[in-house]
Formats: sequence, structure tokens, C-alpha cells
Amino acid sequence: MREDTAWLGTQRLPEVTVHASGVLAQTIRAEVRQTHRLRTDAHVSVCTLARVRETPLWREVEAAVPEHGLGVEGFVVVRRGNDLVVAAEDGHGLLYGYFYLLRYFEWMNGDFTVVERPAVPIRMLDHWDQLSGTVERGYAGESIFFRDGRVVDDLTRVRAYARLLASVGINAVSFAKAELPDVARLAGVFREYGIAVSLVVDFPEEPRDERVARWWSATVARWYEVVPDLGGLVVRDGRDADGANVLARAVAPYGGTVFWRCAGIEHAPDWRDRRSDQARAAYDQFIPLDGRFEENVVLQVKHGPLDFQVREAVSPLLGELQETPFALELQITQEYSGQQRDLCYLGPWWREILQFDTTGDGGATVADRIGAIVAVSNVGDADNWTGHKLAQSNLYAYGRLAWEPAADPVSLVHEWAAATFALDDWTRSELVAIMAGSWRTYERYTAPLGVGFMVTPATHYGPSMTGYEYSGRGHFADRDGVGVDRTVKSGSGFTGQYPEPLASLYEDVYTCPDELLLFFHHVAYGHVLRRGVTVLQHIYDLHFQGYAEVESMVARWQAIADRFDACVQENVTSRFEAQLVNAREWRDQVNTFFYRLSGIPDAHGRTIHR
Amino acid sequence: MREDTAWLGTQRLPEVTVHASGVLAQTIRAEVRQTHRLRTDAHVSVCTLARVRETPLWREVEAAVPEHGLGVEGFVVVRRGNDLVVAAEDGHGLLYGYFYLLRYFEWMNGDFTVVERPAVPIRMLDHWDQLSGTVERGYAGESIFFRDGRVVDDLTRVRAYARLLASVGINAVSFAKAELPDVARLAGVFREYGIAVSLVVDFPEEPRDERVARWWSATVARWYEVVPDLGGLVVRDGRDADGANVLARAVAPYGGTVFWRCAGIEHAPDWRDRRSDQARAAYDQFIPLDGRFEENVVLQVKHGPLDFQVREAVSPLLGELQETPFALELQITQEYSGQQRDLCYLGPWWREILQFDTTGDGGATVADRIGAIVAVSNVGDADNWTGHKLAQSNLYAYGRLAWEPAADPVSLVHEWAAATFALDDWTRSELVAIMAGSWRTYERYTAPLGVGFMVTPATHYGPSMTGYEYSGRGHFADRDGVGVDRTVKSGSGFTGQYPEPLASLYEDVYTCPDELLLFFHHVAYGHVLRRGVTVLQHIYDLHFQGYAEVESMVARWQAIADRFDACVQENVTSRFEAQLVNAREWRDQVNTFFYRLSGIPDAHGRTIHR
Repeated sequence: MREDTAWLGTQRLPEVTVHASGVLAQTIRAEVRQTHRLRTDAHVSVCTLARVRETPLWREVEAAVPEHGLGVEGFVVVRRGNDLVVAAEDGHGLLYGYFYLLRYFEWMNGDFTVVERPAVPIRMLDHWDQLSGTVERGYAGESIFFRDGRVVDDLTRVRAYARLLASVGINAVSFAKAELPDVARLAGVFREYGIAVSLVVDFPEEPRDERVARWWSATVARWYEVVPDLGGLVVRDGRDADGANVLARAVAPYGGTVFWRCAGIEHAPDWRDRRSDQARAAYDQFIPLDGRFEENVVLQVKHGPLDFQVREAVSPLLGELQETPFALELQITQEYSGQQRDLCYLGPWWREILQFDTTGDGGATVADRIGAIVAVSNVGDADNWTGHKLAQSNLYAYGRLAWEPAADPVSLVHEWAAATFALDDWTRSELVAIMAGSWRTYERYTAPLGVGFMVTPATHYGPSMTGYEYSGRGHFADRDGVGVDRTVKSGSGFTGQYPEPLASLYEDVYTCPDELLLFFHHVAYGHVLRRGVTVLQHIYDLHFQGYAEVESMVARWQAIADRFDACVQENVTSRFEAQLVNAREWRDQVNTFFYRLSGIPDAHGRTIHR
Repeated sequence: MREDTAWLGTQRLPEVTVHASGVLAQTIRAEVRQTHRLRTDAHVSVCTLARVRETPLWREVEAAVPEHGLGVEGFVVVRRGNDLVVAAEDGHGLLYGYFYLLRYFEWMNGDFTVVERPAVPIRMLDHWDQLSGTVERGYAGESIFFRDGRVVDDLTRVRAYARLLASVGINAVSFAKAELPDVARLAGVFREYGIAVSLVVDFPEEPRDERVARWWSATVARWYEVVPDLGGLVVRDGRDADGANVLARAVAPYGGTVFWRCAGIEHAPDWRDRRSDQARAAYDQFIPLDGRFEENVVLQVKHGPLDFQVREAVSPLLGELQETPFALELQITQEYSGQQRDLCYLGPWWREILQFDTTGDGGATVADRIGAIVAVSNVGDADNWTGHKLAQSNLYAYGRLAWEPAADPVSLVHEWAAATFALDDWTRSELVAIMAGSWRTYERYTAPLGVGFMVTPATHYGPSMTGYEYSGRGHFADRDGVGVDRTVKSGSGFTGQYPEPLASLYEDVYTCPDELLLFFHHVAYGHVLRRGVTVLQHIYDLHFQGYAEVESMVARWQAIADRFDACVQENVTSRFEAQLVNAREWRDQVNTFFYRLSGIPDAHGRTIHR
């Protein structure tokens, strides 16, 4: 079959000349050769600032460069009539500028001047691919990197992947440490696209033992001999500052970074004790360590205090860490959000998180505070990369939001759809309409009001009403009410981890946002929400609505399906069939569960099975 | 380490001479050589009836033989003074007679005459060991038969196993079909102990296709060339009479039997429809087929209509099949009964099933009606065979009950304990006391009143209150009541599958046995049981009591543990520790689940977590 080029492949550009040298300039030249040529009199120059006077628009370019410069990754694009110039300090900026032009050229009219710099310096993807080829929490086949304990021989697919990542601004990846020569091969491919490679390692046991530190220094030195521009190390389950610092000191001489995930809670909370709370754990463990890390340690903080539920409060760590650089960790792979069987475009959710006001009074958003953004990729060796063809949009949107956290997520789907499919405007609008609200739809037919963990244990797909109830992640539904009391007054005290006025906002059941009501409070089924209905009726309404929305998505898809090639048609149609089944199970099980508990029927007489 | 000889190894016998020839006579001679010699003037003759006049007690033996003879497997044991004779038609009877004497000799005083015949002609063990070495639903390590796709080279362990089985009267086993020469090696070992081997095969697709029938005839012919005394074939998921008959005709020329398991329900019931019921399925599917099978087909019927729950009604198929020979299927491997981590001696449960009156009016017990008895073994390559040392008792009791379904299960534990351990009488009594009630204890702290399927899906260990609720195996607990309505009047109609007076007994909530109340009825929490407490209070009582019983078992064990060798001490003690944890989770989760639903506290003020 033909290779799936995702959002690269339909675009066209005028003639391009490259005034630059180095690895990335070579990459741009190769890109130019494979880009469809637009028949026009326009001409594009891709040029370093040092050589910008070789181009006709050098005055405009120099005038556009901000006082503090463009930085390594920023770029300027100027158009005057038939002349276009993409200018940047060096290869990274030029590469991003080139992909910018590729993305937008055919949409742009008249003269313009654009200056772009990424909002976040490190924009990273983690890969939990195992050397055997299995992808942990992967829903798109096997690894594109590894097979049978080794890196695959043919790196064509990896190169295509690196190109996709660079085109949306990703500049870092991590994966498991294979044999060194194999790591070097992979790093070489990513290097062509300006992407630094980090290696996933186990956390050091006995970090205070001087021999351990020496072992790490010697080991890392060998790695840097082979990959001199290694980005650093990633620890999936970091436990303590000492371990992080051992690694940090080992990579510091080479400019490396240690990404230390704030995970590794050793004891699960006891479901019998409602004061014990998984949500408290990361803050309780890492705030006391703030400032005790070497300066090249980046704490990697999950966006929510639990584990990538479809709705969680934003982690208070993201507002409260003061001394230690930290990364926001998102999850592109749809572990808890439909596993690339259900359509769930996550852009709107990520934007909410990035724009979350950590101070509660306009002080600083998450995007303002982070030094890096990281997410687990959703890619595997499936023909279409992501299992569900439309799930490619999540990879796209992640990269774009990492670069520009204020970007509008619906516009990003438009961009993605335009770049991915050759569609008429109406069809594209329909597709965007189907996708834009799909995260909220998924939220509606699954976990209501931020309750979380009603999902099947282990697989994390499909409903399980009490599968987590007795493991410290329960929702405490009983005949009278539901929800997790995380207040200071009567619950686990988690709300106290936020600064004022957020702490009070969440603490008070009447000011807590509806969508997080059951995340923060245990309320009676008769508690009335701001929209004027009871919690119970709202749960019923959400689930009937969510399922109806999936039916509507499917109907709208069926009306446009024949505009897509057979492969996409078949893929998306069959995934929607599975999603309908899943949404029906969620609707019926959640409604029946709460009906059996409450004994209160639906106010509108819709069917709830006894 | 020393090999675990289970219940063989402590016994002693006087001098024995064997007056017989053939494979089994050789086996008896080998047994004699390895049996500890008791210093006494007594002398034992093991002798075929044809040669009985070579022994001093031939008159007594001939007088003891019943009018219709002993059959192939029956035997006579006569003692007069220092003379003992074991007599039988041929090798099988002699082997069982020899093991009988081995078991009881040291307990017997004075002269006696014993005549024994097995109640059930086929006493079989199924093994779901895969050729890879994995044992499906196995809790005692890997397979003793297979490794890496082949039969193991060293069959020492298999021979020891065959010997254990023969000693309790097992005369048939089944396992997966390996390469033919390997099957022949295994069959050769079992043949030495009078045990016929059957092979597990897939059911034939397209059984009406003449080519399929020819393929099976030709294939089976090759198997019988290699193993002329092959018992037959076992089909794990039999679907239709045609498939069974194809296999039956293929093995008929060689006297083979087809064991066709009454399973293979293709569509799970829909939880939304309370009239659909898994419990109905086997009867509904197989009663219409009764009489349509070749005469060498044996339908293999699970003891209950669901799947080896710790308490179920006895399957109505066991009373209602009229034309087709059938087997009772039990489960020795503790899939749903503690997985050989928790102590659960199943003898009392099996005896209840075997003695169940299928007519309700004294007409015929299950034991009266069956032509065979089959169970899945609990053995693996664990040093002590069964993971939990005390779980050996289940294998022992199964064999003994298969031979003698009226045997007292507590006496069987005494027998087993006496044969297995060198203990003083008090210690043995304590051990028996710990074990004898362990199934009822397990029932008490797990599923109350026959409700079933409150177990964790997939693993089948530990509680999961609603893990099966939405898969058609639910218990329909709501704020008002719990239980599965299987009545004709208002439920699935399953009670109508029993003959009168059983149908009415189960149909009426006031005559239905308490221990099956929630299996047959959905009742309010306030429904009062015969013991005068409500269903809800009874659930609480059972779970507090069940846990207290485990605590008591552990305390009693600790008091006697030092009478056992270090290996047994360590094994049993560590299993009891795990059982305490498990029982606590069951108690607390079940109680909290029902408290949250009902809102009614324990009448005695014991702790139920909110």
C-alpha cells in the first residue's frame, strides 16, 4: 500500500532556494526536492540572518527581527509581491520557518510579515516502546523503532516520523536505551530533523553510594562518545532528589538534561480511609524536594494529580513548584480516552490545561510557567500511524500547541484536515464539526462531573462501575450520593494544595466548577447544579446526550465518508461502529448503576435498565 | 530437595507375593519392592481369581465374590489371622486392591472380608496444560507433561503422578495432543498404572461434510496405531450433535469414547434483559439433542449451570438427560475457590453434589445417574504438586469420592492426613478440624447465599463487587435488594428446568434453601431468612464470621505448625498469610458494598467502612 504521509504531502510551494549550510539546511533542500511545485512567478528564499542581504527583502527581514533576536528556533517570514523570504539564526529556525510556509502558503494572500518563536523551549515526545517491539499503552500496533530486542534495520518509517514531528515543531524525543550503535543510528535520523534524543533509564538504586555515581558518570560518558548531542535521560518513575542528582551530575558536563517524572508513589491509598488520597501524592512528595535538585533536572509533572483521566483538576504542582524547572506532561496516546478506537480529539482539553490560571487571579498560566512540554506519543506501525486515522490530529495538535499554547484547537483541526485530505470546504467543515467536540462527547458518555476511574481496570477501555472502588481510586457512590471529598474541611485536604483563591473556589461546593464537582466533593444525588438540575438528573442527561452525539457523529460521517479514499473510509467507519457499541455500554451501565443506587428514574422517562 | 510423595510413602505392609502376570502385575511387584516392610508374621497374597486356589484363603475369597462377579476393577480383601489375600479378576482390580491394603492395613484389626467395586466406571482427570508448558487455570506452576511445545524428556514426575492417581482409583486422564511418539510415551507411563489416555481435540467445523468425517477417521486410525488402548477424545467446547457424532464414529471401531463438554454458549446474555440467563443455556442447548448422539458419546456436564462457583444449584441436566450417557464434571483446580492460595477443601461440596437427589423425591442421586466423573486436575510442577501443600487433599478426595460417592469427606481428610504426615493423633485431629470446614469458610467470606460471580473478572481471585454485573452474570444489587430472579413466575424461568417437586421448591422464596436464595431469587434486604435475621444482616454476619474463621484457622495452624517439616511449615504458613489478606478484602468490600447500597448498619455495631 501507499505510505500514509499524514499531514505532509498535499502542500505545494513555489521555487525555493536555500542560503544556508549544515545538516538542517541539507534537510530543507531535500524537503524542497520532494515538495510539489506550484506554478507561479513567486520565489522563496530560505536564508540565515547572516546571509540575508543575498535576498531581495533583507531590509524588511532585519526590521522584523525583534530586539532580543529570534533565538535558535524562531524565524521570520516576509512576503512582498512575488518575493518571499524565510529567515532565521540558523538551521532550526529555518526548518520550522520552511514548514510554516509549507503549511500556510496556499492560504496566504498579499504581503505579510510573520515573526514566530516557540513558547516552550523543549517540546518532547516520550515513547514507552519496549525493545521487544511491544508499545506500552500503545493502540496503533507495534513499535516503529524496535523489534526482537533491537532497533529495526530499515529506518525509513522512523525518518518519515521524524519529519512529521519536525513539521509541527517537536524538538525532542525519548525512547528505551538499545545497544549503543543502534541508539546512534536512531539519533542520526532524528538529528536530520533537529530533534534531540534522550534515553529512558531506570532510576538509580542506592544513589548515595559513591560507586553508583561513578558508574553512572562512566556509563553516560560512553553514551555521549557515541551520541555527542544526546538530549539527556528520562526516568519514568522518579522517587527522590538524590537519584535525580546522580544522573544530573553525570550528564551535566555534556549539557544534558534529566527528565524526572513525578510518579512512583509506593503505597496505594487504603480505600477504607477516605483521608488517604492518591491526588495528594505528587505534591506531598515533590514540594518538599523543590530546590534540592541540580539545575539540569526537569521535573515532569502529569497534567492532573491522578493519571490522565478524561477530566481532572490541573495538578497544583504546576503552580507551586518554585525553584525547580518543570515540564507539563500530557498524553497523546489515548489510554483513558478511547484508545484510538473512539474518536477523541484532545486539542481543546490540552488548551484548557495550558491556559489554566495557576494563581487563580491572572498571575500565570501553566504555559507561562513550564520550561518544557512532554507527551507520550500515539504512534505505532499501523499503516496510518495512529490506528484511528483521525487520531493523527492529536499528534498534530500537540506539536502545534506546544509551540503556540494559545492556538485555537478548532483552527488546528481545520489546518490538520486541510493538510491531510483533499476536501471541498463543506466536507472539511463537516469533518471539523465531527472532530472538534469529540473530547467533550467522550467525557459526556464516560465519567460524569470529573468523577474519574469508572473505567475497566488494567485495560482502561470501557466502563467498570466499581473496578477501582476498592483500590483507593473510588468514587464512593452509595444510595445517597457520589463523589470524592477532597476538601480541607471534611475530606482528604487536597484542595489545600492550591493557593488562594483557587483553594476556596474548589473547597466550596457552590463555587467549584460543575465539571469538577465530583472530583472535589461528595454530594447528594439531589444536589442542584448551576444549570438547575440535580446531580443525578445531570448524570442521566450527560449519558443520553453523549450517546446521541456519537450517533450524530456517525451519521454526519456517513454523509461525507465517500469523499475519502477507501482505506480511510473503512478505517474510520469501523472505528465509529466500535465507538457506538462502547458509548452504548457506558451510557447504559452508568445510568443503571446510579438508578440502582438512587432508585430515582429519569425525569424524562428515557429507558434506564433496571 | 526430596521428592514430595504426597499420600504415598509412609505406609508399611507385611511380605507380599503376587500371583498374577501382565503389565499391572509388574507394577504391583514394583510397588511391593518400594513399600516399607512391616516386621510381622503376616503375609499377603495378591492373586487373580483364576489362581486363587494357590492361596490359603481361597474358600473365603470365593465365598465373598458377589453373584455378578467383581467386574474388571473390583476386588476382595480377606484376612484370617496372619493370612491376607487380595483377589480380583485381573490386574486392574489387583492394583486397586493392593492400594486399598496399603492405605488401610495398619488401621485394620482382626479378621475381615472386604468387597469393593467402584461406583462409577470412568474416573477421569482432565488437564488443560498447553504444549508450551502453561497450565490454563493452573495454580501450581507449569505443566508436568509439556515444555516448549513438546512432552518433557524425563517422565519421572509423570510416573509418580500416575502412581498417585492409581492409588486413589483414577483410571483415565486427558491432555492435549502432542506429537504422536510423545503421546505414546505418556500413554506408556499411564498404562503401567491402569490409566487410559484420551486426547483433547478441537470440535470439528463443518461436521456434515463427508470429507471432514473421512479426515477424522483417517487421523484417528493413525493415533490408534500408535496407542491402541487410547481412551478416546475430549472436546472442551462441544457445540452440536453432528460434531460429536463425527468424532464418535471415528473412534468407535477401536472402542473409544468421545467426551463432549456441554459448553460453548455462543452469545453471552445481555445484562439489560433479565429474562436472558446463562444458567439456562446448557439445558436449553442439550436437552433437545438428548438421544441424537452416537452411543459412545459421553456428555460432560459441569456440576452447576454456571461455572464452578463456590456455591451453585446442581445442574438440572444431571437429572434430565435420559438417552445419552453423561459425566459429572467437577473442578479440583481451585479456579473460583482460592486458587490454592486459600485453603478450601472441596470434599464436602463434591459429596453434596454427588448425593443430590435429582428427582426431589428419593428417585436417583447424581451419583446414581452418571456414567463417568471428570475433573480438572490441580497439579503442576510445584515441588509439592499443588502449590498449597494441603490442596493435595482435594486430589485425594476427588479420587476416593469418584470410587465411593457416599464416602464421608471428613473421614477422607483423616485418611489423607494420616497417609501424608507422620502426626500424633491430636495434631492430626487439629489439622482435620482446620481443613474440614474450609470450603464453608471460603463460601462465607466470599459470595453470600449462592449469589456467585462477585469475583474479579479474568483472574477469578479476590472480590469484585460489580466486575460481572454488566456481562450477563450480575447479581442485580440495588438500593432495595439483591439476587437473580430465576423463577418461572417473574424471572428467567430457570427453575422450570427442574422436575417437580424441585421446581416448586426453588420457585418459592420461602422453601428455597437459604444457601441458594440469591441464586434463585431477587429479594429485599429486609427479607427474613429461616434463621430469623434479614438477608442484609445475614450477609454481614457471614462475612464477619468467615473472616473470624480464617483467623481461627491460622491460630490453630500456628499451634501445630512445628509438627511439620520446615518446607510444609513455610508453605502453609505463607499461604495462610495470603488467605487472611484475601479474606479481609472480601469481608470489607462485600460489607461496604451492601452498606452503601442499603444504608443499613450492622445490628451488632461491628466496623463496616463507609
